Amino acid sequence: MSSILVLPGDGIGPEIVDEALRVLTAAQKRFDLDIQLDHALVGGAAYDAEGDPLPESTLAKARAADAILFGSIGGPKWDNIERDKRPERGLLRLRSSLGLFANLRPAILFPQLAEASSLKPEVVSGLDILIVRELTGGIYFGQPRGIKEENGERVGFNTYVYSESEMKRIARVAFDLAMQRGKRVCSVDKANVLEVTELWKEVVTEEAKAYPEIELSHMYVDNAAMQLVRAPKQFDVIVTGNLFGDILSDEAAMLTGSIGMLPSASLDENRKGLYEPCHGSAPDIAGQGIANPLATIMSLAMLMRYSLQRDDVADAIEAAVEKVLDQGLRTGDIYTEGTRKVSTGEMGSAVAEAL
Amino acid sequence: MSSILVLPGDGIGPEIVDEALRVLTAAQKRFDLDIQLDHALVGGAAYDAEGDPLPESTLAKARAADAILFGSIGGPKWDNIERDKRPERGLLRLRSSLGLFANLRPAILFPQLAEASSLKPEVVSGLDILIVRELTGGIYFGQPRGIKEENGERVGFNTYVYSESEMKRIARVAFDLAMQRGKRVCSVDKANVLEVTELWKEVVTEEAKAYPEIELSHMYVDNAAMQLVRAPKQFDVIVTGNLFGDILSDEAAMLTGSIGMLPSASLDENRKGLYEPCHGSAPDIAGQGIANPLATIMSLAMLMRYSLQRDDVADAIEAAVEKVLDQGLRTGDIYTEGTRKVSTGEMGSAVAEAL
Ligand SMILES: CC(C)[C@H](C(=O)O)[C@@H](O)C(=O)O
Ligand SMILES: CC(C)[C@H](C(=O)O)[C@@H](O)C(=O)O
Repeated sequence: MSSILVLPGDGIGPEIVDEALRVLTAAQKRFDLDIQLDHALVGGAAYDAEGDPLPESTLAKARAADAILFGSIGGPKWDNIERDKRPERGLLRLRSSLGLFANLRPAILFPQLAEASSLKPEVVSGLDILIVRELTGGIYFGQPRGIKEENGERVGFNTYVYSESEMKRIARVAFDLAMQRGKRVCSVDKANVLEVTELWKEVVTEEAKAYPEIELSHMYVDNAAMQLVRAPKQFDVIVTGNLFGDILSDEAAMLTGSIGMLPSASLDENRKGLYEPCHGSAPDIAGQGIANPLATIMSLAMLMRYSLQRDDVADAIEAAVEKVLDQGLRTGDIYTEGTRKVSTGEMGSAVAEAL
Repeated sequence: MSSILVLPGDGIGPEIVDEALRVLTAAQKRFDLDIQLDHALVGGAAYDAEGDPLPESTLAKARAADAILFGSIGGPKWDNIERDKRPERGLLRLRSSLGLFANLRPAILFPQLAEASSLKPEVVSGLDILIVRELTGGIYFGQPRGIKEENGERVGFNTYVYSESEMKRIARVAFDLAMQRGKRVCSVDKANVLEVTELWKEVVTEEAKAYPEIELSHMYVDNAAMQLVRAPKQFDVIVTGNLFGDILSDEAAMLTGSIGMLPSASLDENRKGLYEPCHGSAPDIAGQGIANPLATIMSLAMLMRYSLQRDDVADAIEAAVEKVLDQGLRTGDIYTEGTRKVSTGEMGSAVAEAL
């Protein structure tokens, strides 16, 4: 038996997670899956109910589960509360407490949605990049940090820090994943300016020796931001730190034009993982039944693949998504003339049915 | 009389600077310009000659000059020398020693080169963004920094730090420049994670009160990286810190498809400035006479505008560049069928003549 903790979160989170659960039910019927589901509060919803974006009870359940299906968090409602209580901090503490250091963010162009990209078709057709982002270290968690008073004025400061072992383990994840793909890894740093990334480059290079088949290259982050726009298909796997990964994975996702389609996985050493869509909580459209549930459904597929080791189920879910796209079903965010606009619920049902 | 220090640097630097000087000579003939030129070594060239990428003599000349015309620096030849002696460090020390805190990086799409962009024409046509990047602070210069030994392993660390006064002065530069343009400023931060940028957001917001006509917005850096790809024309002026500015300005430059066209200015409190093309030293094509000198020529135009307060000369140089583009002259990097491929020297001569 496997246990999945469901954390719907805020904004459109609950709606899109509901559709993923509908697909899960269909998958349980078709496959031999023994899954126990549990639910808990996180983010703004948890703050409202218990004064904490990551209550102890939620964390305990998350620790106990084999995998976590996560919706999305945040919204203007919680913008002005005390820093440590904001929804985002709940997610950051969850990542860190569970040691979910490996964030996998695929940027894939669905041929059915090629038109949605702001890039020319020939630049992005067939795009399939995997960004591997370190998720529990770097400047996101570095100490010291804060805002202090110095010489009569305020000074803000954060610390960008990585140890060799943190760098090694994320490099290995990237190399292992690349071995199952195009065997090319591009490590992104700013080694010409930042010592921490100079060490990063060195450690990644050393680690690569254990992977003779991997073609490793290095790129400065400013150049990577350019190359993603110029010729994104040059990349197979990109590995980088927490902050650069945050920026580049969003840029890469947007190349596809359909951020409502992109899932992500955040894994620990034992492939226990948290799975969430790349997009945010979209408070402006929450509750209207128009959000795109496909990124969350694809996140469920990743959950099957990585944490439950059920490639067959993952493949089937992904195939079902392709099928409804082929049928011309589209939520508002990916709608184009000649296709059929459907609601969040209709899209979820269609995928469940296709399964 | 005004004095300009010329720092050709490495790679294609000397070739492209030569063409800018040819244009300067033409400008001197046409306009009433009393300019004294001086030359000095910087970057790898200075390291080779004097063991230092920014020799004392170069720095002294730079301090004395009213403006600096800079080519480009770096190359594989100097990749493995001691960190502090690398060409890039010379440039960083120069920026810092002269207090060139305001880096202006326009991303403009030349209608004649619209095809060069990897984005769809409707997404980028008419693009005209100005990125204002803080250049002498932030994580580029923060202390402490380095690589140390801790618990038996290496640890790399850098410090991201800004004081209120540093934030204020760059915000004012952005607001002043926006007042001469679309009056919209987008400040980019990662205030949901990094305290230093939380303070940034606060200070920029306070500073904006003195500019009631300015429409100020805020965006997280990951979202900004996305929005630049999705709908870049939504921006007028973007203001941000050193590292985010490095990444976003290169991304924005690449939206135009013609990074060989884009100039930059780095200004101090008194509008003394260093002017350099956005592109690098391109060691692979150095010495072949095929590099595009237009970014350097446009940098000379910025020099006229900002440091010499000669808008008339700047406008004339920019008009001359437009004219040669209209004539169909193209260096290899911007060549498309139906245009005429010319060398670095032919391009420079054509602009000088058009002037
Ligand atoms: C919400 C925020 C803290 C988060 C991050 O920066 O990691 C988000 O942007 C992401 O990429 O998952
Ligand atoms: C060469 C390098 C140090 C420099 C920087 O990062 O500032 C360059 O990328 C730039 O943007 O001018």
